[in-house]
Amino acid sequence: MSAKEKKLPPERNIALRLAYLGTNYHGWQYQNNALSIQQVLQEALAKATGCQVVLSGVGRTDAGVHARAYVANGRMRTGIPLDKLPLAVGAYLPEDIAVSRATEVPEDFDARFNCRSKEYTYLIHNSRTRNPFYHNRAYFCPAPLDFEAMVQAAPHFEGQQDFAAVRSVGTPVRSTVRTMLYCRAERQGDLIAVRVRADGFLYNMARAIAGTLIYCGLGKISPEEIPAVLASRDRERAGPTAPACGLYMTGLDYGMEELDV
Amino acid sequence: MSAKEKKLPPERNIALRLAYLGTNYHGWQYQNNALSIQQVLQEALAKATGCQVVLSGVGRTDAGVHARAYVANGRMRTGIPLDKLPLAVGAYLPEDIAVSRATEVPEDFDARFNCRSKEYTYLIHNSRTRNPFYHNRAYFCPAPLDFEAMVQAAPHFEGQQDFAAVRSVGTPVRSTVRTMLYCRAERQGDLIAVRVRADGFLYNMARAIAGTLIYCGLGKISPEEIPAVLASRDRERAGPTAPACGLYMTGLDYGMEELDV
Repeated sequence: MSAKEKKLPPERNIALRLAYLGTNYHGWQYQNNALSIQQVLQEALAKATGCQVVLSGVGRTDAGVHARAYVANGRMRTGIPLDKLPLAVGAYLPEDIAVSRATEVPEDFDARFNCRSKEYTYLIHNSRTRNPFYHNRAYFCPAPLDFEAMVQAAPHFEGQQDFAAVRSVGTPVRSTVRTMLYCRAERQGDLIAVRVRADGFLYNMARAIAGTLIYCGLGKISPEEIPAVLASRDRERAGPTAPACGLYMTGLDYGMEELDV
Repeated sequence: MSAKEKKLPPERNIALRLAYLGTNYHGWQYQNNALSIQQVLQEALAKATGCQVVLSGVGRTDAGVHARAYVANGRMRTGIPLDKLPLAVGAYLPEDIAVSRATEVPEDFDARFNCRSKEYTYLIHNSRTRNPFYHNRAYFCPAPLDFEAMVQAAPHFEGQQDFAAVRSVGTPVRSTVRTMLYCRAERQGDLIAVRVRADGFLYNMARAIAGTLIYCGLGKISPEEIPAVLASRDRERAGPTAPACGLYMTGLDYGMEELDV
C-alpha cells in the first residue's frame, strides 16, 4: 500500500435514497449522447467526495419518467459522515434531483439485484380542461374514463403471470413471468392513479398496464377480457404504452428500514 | 356599416377563467422584451377567433408567480360558442397555460376593477432535503420553522391597515391602506401554506407578508412585534420579499358564480 492510499478513508458500499423529476433527463442509465440521472449524480458525487463513483441503480427508467423513491449504490472512499453526505452532494445537484439519505450497506449489496419489489404509480389527469400544474407530471386524458371499469380490470393483472402481452421488446429476458403483488386504480379528484407493485417489471410493463387500463376506461377493452389478453401473450391485444410523463417509481422493498419506502 | 362588418358576429365582452404555471413567463403583463402570459394568451385568442383581442387581467403577477385562478376579459367578435372557446383557444396555448371557462360579462365589466378581493397562497417547503417535485413551485426553506409562531403572527395582518411596511416601491398608489380579510398559516406535511385574502394588494405585498412570517418562523421577529412593524411603515423592519416561485394567485371574488373560485 502506497503512502497516498493510506490517507484515504476505507472504501465502503453506500446506498443513496433519492428522488427526481425526470422531465429533463433521458432516464436513469448513463448514455454517451444524452443526459442521464446517473451521470449527473455521479458527477455531483465526484465533486463532493473527490472520488470517481460508479453507481448501480434499482432500475432503468425511461426518458421523462419520475422517481419519488429511487435507490442507487456505489463504492466510495469518503470522509464525509453519511448523515452529511446528502447535503454535500446536494450542493452539486440541480434542483430536479435530490438525495435524501445515505446508508452503508453490506459489501455485496446491489441496488438492482437486492430489490425484492418495486412500486410504480401512473397518474392520469382525466378532465375536460388541462391543468398547467400537471404538465409533464400526469398523462392528460380529456375523454371521460369509466373509473369503475378500471377498478374492476386492475386485479386481473395480480399474481404470478406471463406479462409478455404488456411489455415492449427490449433487452432480452430469460422469462416474461413476473409476480404482481397488487394492481389497483385509485381516484383523487380529477386524478386517477394506477398503482402496481411487482417483484420485477419487463420493459415498458408499467406503462403498458396503465395504457390497457385506460383502454378499459374508454370502453375499448372490457375488464373481463384482461385474462385472455394476458394469456394471448400478444402485445397487439393489450392497450398502448401510456406516455412516460405520467409514470413515477414510488416504492421499493429491500427488507431494510433505511431504504424502503 | 360595410358589407364586411355585417358578417362579423357582434362584439361581446368575454371573461376567461384561466390557470398558469408562471415559471417560464415574465408575469401577466405584456412587455416588449420578455414573454408574458398576456401576450401568449392574446396570440392564441387571435388564432382561435381570427380577431385581435386586448385583455385586461385581474392583476399583474411577477415573473415566476403562478395562478391557480386568474380572470382576464376582453372584447371579442367570435362565432365560437362560449362553451367551446376554452378548447378552441387551448389548441394554440402551451401546456403551462389553460383556459377553463369563458363567460359573457356586462359591457362595463373589467377583470381588474370589478374584483372585490383576491386570495394568494404562498407555499414554503420546510424540510432538510429538497423535494424535486417542488422545484419552482414552493420556496425551499431548510432551516426549521416555528410553525406556531407563524400561526400566531398571521392574524396581526388582518383588518384595515396601512401596509406600507410590506410593499416594494413600484407604481405610485394613492393609498397604502388595504383591508385584509384573512391571513393564516396552514401546514400540510412538510409544506407550510400562507393564505392571504384582501380587497387589494400593494406591489410585492403578499410576498413581503410571507417573508415576514418566515422571519417569525425563524425567530427573527416575534409575533407580537407585527403590529409595531406595520405601524412603523418601514420596509426595513419587516421580513424580506419571499421568492416568486412560492406564490400562487388562488382565489377571486367578483360576486359572480361563473368567475369566483
